[in-house]
Amino acid sequence: MMTKPTEGVISVAQANAAKMADRNTSFVFDEWYVAALASEVGRSLLSRTLLGRRIVLYRTQAGTVVALDDRCIHRSYPLSAGTLENDTIVCGYHGFRYGAEGDLVEIPSQDRCPRGLGVHRYPVREIGPMIWIYMGEASAPRTEPPIEAVLNLSKWEYSEGYLPLRGNYVSLHENLLDLTHLSYIHAKSFGTPDYARAPFEVEIEEGCYALKRSVVPTTLPPVWAVPTGISSPSAARIATSTFVSPGLHVVEVTFYDSALPEEERTRFTIRTLHLPTPESHDSTHYFIVHCRDFALENQEITKFMHDQLFSAFREDVEALELLEGVLRCADADFFEISIASDRPSVEMRKYLKRRAGATLGT
Amino acid sequence: MMTKPTEGVISVAQANAAKMADRNTSFVFDEWYVAALASEVGRSLLSRTLLGRRIVLYRTQAGTVVALDDRCIHRSYPLSAGTLENDTIVCGYHGFRYGAEGDLVEIPSQDRCPRGLGVHRYPVREIGPMIWIYMGEASAPRTEPPIEAVLNLSKWEYSEGYLPLRGNYVSLHENLLDLTHLSYIHAKSFGTPDYARAPFEVEIEEGCYALKRSVVPTTLPPVWAVPTGISSPSAARIATSTFVSPGLHVVEVTFYDSALPEEERTRFTIRTLHLPTPESHDSTHYFIVHCRDFALENQEITKFMHDQLFSAFREDVEALELLEGVLRCADADFFEISIASDRPSVEMRKYLKRRAGATLGT
Amino acid sequence: MMTKPTEGVISVAQANAAKMADRNTSFVFDEWYVAALASEVGRSLLSRTLLGRRIVLYRTQAGTVVALDDRCIHRSYPLSAGTLENDTIVCGYHGFRYGAEGDLVEIPSQDRCPRGLGVHRYPVREIGPMIWIYMGEASAPRTEPPIEAVLNLSKWEYSEGYLPLRGNYVSLHENLLDLTHLSYIHAKSFGTPDYARAPFEVEIEEGCYALKRSVVPTTLPPVWAVPTGISSPSAARIATSTFVSPGLHVVEVTFYDSALPEEERTRFTIRTLHLPTPESHDSTHYFIVHCRDFALENQEITKFMHDQLFSAFREDVEALELLEGVLRCADADFFEISIASDRPSVEMRKYLKRRAGATLGT
Repeated sequence: MMTKPTEGVISVAQANAAKMADRNTSFVFDEWYVAALASEVGRSLLSRTLLGRRIVLYRTQAGTVVALDDRCIHRSYPLSAGTLENDTIVCGYHGFRYGAEGDLVEIPSQDRCPRGLGVHRYPVREIGPMIWIYMGEASAPRTEPPIEAVLNLSKWEYSEGYLPLRGNYVSLHENLLDLTHLSYIHAKSFGTPDYARAPFEVEIEEGCYALKRSVVPTTLPPVWAVPTGISSPSAARIATSTFVSPGLHVVEVTFYDSALPEEERTRFTIRTLHLPTPESHDSTHYFIVHCRDFALENQEITKFMHDQLFSAFREDVEALELLEGVLRCADADFFEISIASDRPSVEMRKYLKRRAGATLGT
Repeated sequence: MMTKPTEGVISVAQANAAKMADRNTSFVFDEWYVAALASEVGRSLLSRTLLGRRIVLYRTQAGTVVALDDRCIHRSYPLSAGTLENDTIVCGYHGFRYGAEGDLVEIPSQDRCPRGLGVHRYPVREIGPMIWIYMGEASAPRTEPPIEAVLNLSKWEYSEGYLPLRGNYVSLHENLLDLTHLSYIHAKSFGTPDYARAPFEVEIEEGCYALKRSVVPTTLPPVWAVPTGISSPSAARIATSTFVSPGLHVVEVTFYDSALPEEERTRFTIRTLHLPTPESHDSTHYFIVHCRDFALENQEITKFMHDQLFSAFREDVEALELLEGVLRCADADFFEISIASDRPSVEMRKYLKRRAGATLGT
Repeated sequence: MMTKPTEGVISVAQANAAKMADRNTSFVFDEWYVAALASEVGRSLLSRTLLGRRIVLYRTQAGTVVALDDRCIHRSYPLSAGTLENDTIVCGYHGFRYGAEGDLVEIPSQDRCPRGLGVHRYPVREIGPMIWIYMGEASAPRTEPPIEAVLNLSKWEYSEGYLPLRGNYVSLHENLLDLTHLSYIHAKSFGTPDYARAPFEVEIEEGCYALKRSVVPTTLPPVWAVPTGISSPSAARIATSTFVSPGLHVVEVTFYDSALPEEERTRFTIRTLHLPTPESHDSTHYFIVHCRDFALENQEITKFMHDQLFSAFREDVEALELLEGVLRCADADFFEISIASDRPSVEMRKYLKRRAGATLGT
């Protein structure tokens, strides 16, 4: 009857959890995150809360993306409710005007506009379909968005999308880092029963955590079987999930037919960039770029895969929202037990906790 | 103009209130409560929050009811979102499998499943139309559900139901313990104006609080007049409300025609089991079993009375939800004045407060 | 890039803000506020939360308005859910009866009704279309509603209305005290671009704060041009906003044609009473009486102006609700910068803060 773990087991689990990031942990500001799809930002004012801060985004007439604090320094009216005039924002309350650098350049009710006032302008980078933002305290970011290291867009065919997630971003990273869940959450979409039991290897180094599963032989679900043409039960599916940064998680999967001799195998690779940007402690902007190295320029296959994949990613969103409902009610007795395949995940959460507590640049 | 009670009166009232349970008081765990109607629990997973805890309920293939903590010990996913396979639950996230005792019996991603892990299984009893649960800390409950003491179902005709209540369970007990309110809340259903002024007796002993009202002579409302056939203004209506336990309140009413000589009177008795189970501090699962000792096996009368009564109980729910709105906003100045007919109620609330503070088994 | 004000500027701004009332500041109870439109209060029970307290309002058979605490002293049931019998309220739970003075006069379940019990009755005044209430601690209000000082209703044509505002009342006063915002929030209704730049004078004395803008020459928007007939670009629009009390703000505007010689000018005056009554810290009952001294008894013009004006006031409500969304999230880093035209506003907010902290009658 009393099958709860012993107090000893629970207290060890709780001591470990104290070192791991969870939904209550401070955000890691000194990093790059995706602020928006490039297609979302144009010549109107876009308001978005990122890492708990309200940001207004727009493009200058020259096309440069601008990201400013979305709060007039006068009486706190959201700048996004104002108007974009040329490259300036005019506050919709008393007409304070801000240049694209964030500087206050005009106060209509008086001749003189004091200098040295304005709102913070955040460094941004537009890379392919994504706008990245740096919200750290540093006067300039020490790094560039991590995407360059993992993606040379020109060699891939890709499509992108966005899912709002009513859950915390730590749980999303953890979800991505152990794809065991494909057999359960995605049982009706791209998961197969053998996924959970497939052998795995882990890679752990400071700031980079990976888990690789080799599902061989297996039968591919339609989302992969159709575009690769591998419909036999001898398919190989080699999947690696890698936490690259708090704002980027890469899942790469290679498919081939294991029944063929090594030298005759055609390899198909897909690489999905999962780009979680915390909105608040219980909501996340979940951006996704899905890339493949085959069937290039085939729009029909792009559409087929996009629809199937986003439908599956919505299953993650639903599951994470259910999970958030439990985590929200966690009390002092709360504990979680980790297993072997959680190692990268546990280390990743410890890293996020250290980063959250770290001072600038360390 | 200044008709508020004096500060002296208010401070006495507040000192008394400090000894009485209210919406903020801890629940009394070391007791039996109704978890569900028997008809609600079957071969699918039912999730329900009881005394602030998420519980999952189901029946084994043999029909035994199982109640487990609704949270996987791994990553806290609700077990109720998983699948029932034979008598085991498979978690919908990473496939952890739990037996009907709550023991973890399989982790798909590894060969070895550690022993001594699992979720708490709660003692349950299925008695007639109700499933009872014991959520105390004791390794085994010291008692059985109190229903046996008050009800031998075979001698009654009964019907049962459930009302969700957005209010605390203490206010519901208090509502039931003084039926003065029948003249007001139920003025349009089963109350009559003479109810509030009828003479009453109280019975008070540790853990058992009762108030008996004798409304004689009176005219019965249709819900009683129709099935008993007593339509004269000489009816007697003798009602006793008894707090039996935090999870059970019994209201018994006897009707007869007082114009007849003692020896010729036919007595009709109804007994309503009010079964409040706290869901949270401001919501209650309100189960009800309504029994009568007349017109047995008459389904038409069962339906007639059920409809009329549940319509009246809904009036209580509406009133208690209105009340909760006021209590929710109670500030430091808040006070309540008690009168003679509140004695059982006040003692009952003091008892609940003592029980909430008591350690196990005392 | 780093255009945020220096830390020195921010810390001065924050030190100033600490002396100014904001959405978190306690209400000023020792004042008169509008509780309801006269037309809202009749022979049924009206429940309304004012300054965070639940009040029940009704008229006696003789037509006198009564305002009582909306909470039975017995078990806290809202009196507004009871019934009005002649001039008494009968509680809808256990029938406690209260006279129009707030005194408890009957307890149905017992013969004797203790004396000296009851609910607080608040002083009220019915003046024209408005019911005023005094919610201070004083045994009697030291003053009368401020409306007498500013309005002799007989010389005006007026119409009144009510807007629920999901925002705090301090921001509403601040909105009214600097009409610079007409050029922005009301750009599509009664604002004109020249408004924000027009010269202004301020008047500041303890408890009375005013700002006067002279917009000359200007073109009147239809809401004023139509009824005054001044359609030339030589119109004058002289507007004075005056904070009279926490519950009353008066905006008076005079129009004439500045192209005419002084002695030939017909002057048209409108006076709008803005009557904010805090409901809670983030919601306000916004009552409005709009008066004019021309086109008297012309119902068509009354309707035309009423529709246009309330449509514009709804723009304020929308803007203040947007603003509340920002203020609700203000953290320790929050600051606001004030400019010359904010002087009356800043002094008004300091006054509200002093009043909120003041003990009775000081």
